[in-house]
Amino acid sequence: MGIKINVERTSAPKEKPEISQLGFGKFFTDHMFIMDYDSGEGWHHPRIVPYQQILMDPAAKVFHYGQTVFEGMKAYKTPDGRILMFRPYKNLQRLNRSNTRLSIPSLDEGLVMEALKQLIKVDEDWIPSELGTSLYIRPFVIATQATLGVSPSEKYHFMIILSPVGSYYEEGINPVSIYVESEYVRAVTGGVGNAKTGGNYAAGLKAQQEATEKGYSQVLWLDGVHRKYIEEVGSMNVFFKIGNKVVTPALNGSILEGVTRDSVIRVLRHWNIEVEEKTISIDELVAAYRSGTLEEAFGTGTAAVISPIGELNWQGDKLSLNGGRTGPLASKVYDFLTGVQRGTVEDPFGWIEKV
Amino acid sequence: MGIKINVERTSAPKEKPEISQLGFGKFFTDHMFIMDYDSGEGWHHPRIVPYQQILMDPAAKVFHYGQTVFEGMKAYKTPDGRILMFRPYKNLQRLNRSNTRLSIPSLDEGLVMEALKQLIKVDEDWIPSELGTSLYIRPFVIATQATLGVSPSEKYHFMIILSPVGSYYEEGINPVSIYVESEYVRAVTGGVGNAKTGGNYAAGLKAQQEATEKGYSQVLWLDGVHRKYIEEVGSMNVFFKIGNKVVTPALNGSILEGVTRDSVIRVLRHWNIEVEEKTISIDELVAAYRSGTLEEAFGTGTAAVISPIGELNWQGDKLSLNGGRTGPLASKVYDFLTGVQRGTVEDPFGWIEKV
Ligand SMILES: Cc1ncc(COP(=O)(O)O)c(C=O)c1O
Ligand SMILES: Cc1ncc(COP(=O)(O)O)c(C=O)c1O
Repeated sequence: MGIKINVERTSAPKEKPEISQLGFGKFFTDHMFIMDYDSGEGWHHPRIVPYQQILMDPAAKVFHYGQTVFEGMKAYKTPDGRILMFRPYKNLQRLNRSNTRLSIPSLDEGLVMEALKQLIKVDEDWIPSELGTSLYIRPFVIATQATLGVSPSEKYHFMIILSPVGSYYEEGINPVSIYVESEYVRAVTGGVGNAKTGGNYAAGLKAQQEATEKGYSQVLWLDGVHRKYIEEVGSMNVFFKIGNKVVTPALNGSILEGVTRDSVIRVLRHWNIEVEEKTISIDELVAAYRSGTLEEAFGTGTAAVISPIGELNWQGDKLSLNGGRTGPLASKVYDFLTGVQRGTVEDPFGWIEKV
Repeated sequence: MGIKINVERTSAPKEKPEISQLGFGKFFTDHMFIMDYDSGEGWHHPRIVPYQQILMDPAAKVFHYGQTVFEGMKAYKTPDGRILMFRPYKNLQRLNRSNTRLSIPSLDEGLVMEALKQLIKVDEDWIPSELGTSLYIRPFVIATQATLGVSPSEKYHFMIILSPVGSYYEEGINPVSIYVESEYVRAVTGGVGNAKTGGNYAAGLKAQQEATEKGYSQVLWLDGVHRKYIEEVGSMNVFFKIGNKVVTPALNGSILEGVTRDSVIRVLRHWNIEVEEKTISIDELVAAYRSGTLEEAFGTGTAAVISPIGELNWQGDKLSLNGGRTGPLASKVYDFLTGVQRGTVEDPFGWIEKV
């Protein structure tokens, strides 16, 4: 690549956690990548350094005006010791789309890919290899200029941190109960819902918290305009099997264009299963449930890959899906995708990137 | 109060900037206030320390999920040397409303008021006294827990930083040109538009940037549902004088409940001018303009106090208001409010708080 990334290795490696303790995003590896932006100079000084706290001015714009974007992706260690990533370029392209929406200067995707690979290699020993585990990769940009005017920052940090994560499912893929949210709204067309930026997640915290208190693990978001069209489930895209067809909300500007979503659509079509991206109302969904054609529902995202929905609570009505058990389609897609990701199932799409 | 706030004074005071250099939010005083939150322990360790960079874990939730709120208020030095604040309790109440919306633990308003006063006194020499200048006060909360799960943080910093600011208007109050935004949306009912949180400002950056490129200083936001009702102007509330009546958008959940907005409404009513808080469509506004009854428009907010609108660009149509000059009502309200704030006009409402 010809890009020089300076590497400073830690002199005090941390102790690695037990696999059983991992959870999600709780432990971080020994190193991180960091690069700076200054207007005039552009992105500069790419470097790998020991994982450490960073010094921030209290007036940094990210603290006040939320000018930040991030990505989430994973690396897997195969049974024979190779390190694989899943469609990383899709994430880097989305990162730059998020940057554009948030008035953040674009990143060189080639450089970021190179940084990712080098960082993963430096912390290779941190990648767990047990079934279901992986190395979660969090690239992100924060605005660091220390002035309070409401305008795009003239300084940024781009960073990548790595976290070994445990299996999302303790004992095999398992369905969750979902609360259909009718009070709070996550995002609206014309806003930033299709960018991976902090504000969308901040806006969802309260609904998530109230759903948890009611015993539900996530909310199903409805659109902010009509308050009746399905958007996403928690931080996942969502799919429904209705009769012989699979439907998922169309990309309308307010939902995130998930990499897993795109992969699921392509896998299903590869299997000759009809998939439609369309506007889906909650009424249509309930009608399908009542008529017995709503067979399965599942969320899709990097963290869980596939998250089957066992129950939907819509204004107090509890709709039990596939008897509250994981459906056959969700299982099949899950097995295929996780197999490709771990290198145990052939990859017909060229999705795997070796590190 | 009985609250012990530890004070560590700087041993290296900074040089103070020239009044002409001040601008907005570019310089910070010698000290800052900081207090920590840990679940279990609550808010603790309130302290005034030298203004300094803070150490943050790269995984801190504020960087990823935008869990942050802030306030903006001012202190003024009167010609006879007193220090006055304007309705600070309103800001502290709003800060706690924002906290609730963002799943951040509430702050003790009495303690925060005490912290504000002590901090301002420590940095008293930094308050400029020239006409139009003031000390801008920025209280804010940031989520500091270093884990990547999307859930409310278990650790926070609450901080107050102070910035001496110059006159918003170089030579007396002056009208701005405003672009009516029809593509981007700032906030929607059910979202976080009525909370003072970073994500709302991040969502507005791109529209603001494009308006600036077209030669406009701010955008007028329309609602995200119908895309036709007036919401706010940039980071200000907005008022229109139509015939003998003044109208301003009603508090609908997606606009901020401005302290200046409330003050303007009360002042106008005190002067027996009719004020109506209602839903105002852009069509209604344009119709009033065409019939010659739209006499004045102005934004209201802590930074500018009153910002008259000289021109509105609605889909290419340029509506010139009051001949592009500051209207008599905007002038009168501006003179009254800034006079009360600086202690040169009697305060009939009990809005002034001495430090
Ligand atoms: C809001 C939101 N929707 C959907 C997704 C799924 O996207 P992906 O499949 O790229 O992980 C994510 C990220 O995980 C997300 O944060
Ligand atoms: C979005 C927004 N609207 C309105 C206002 C005006 O509020 P206040 O008068 O309390 O400053 C502000 C803050 O200045 C704001 O950020």
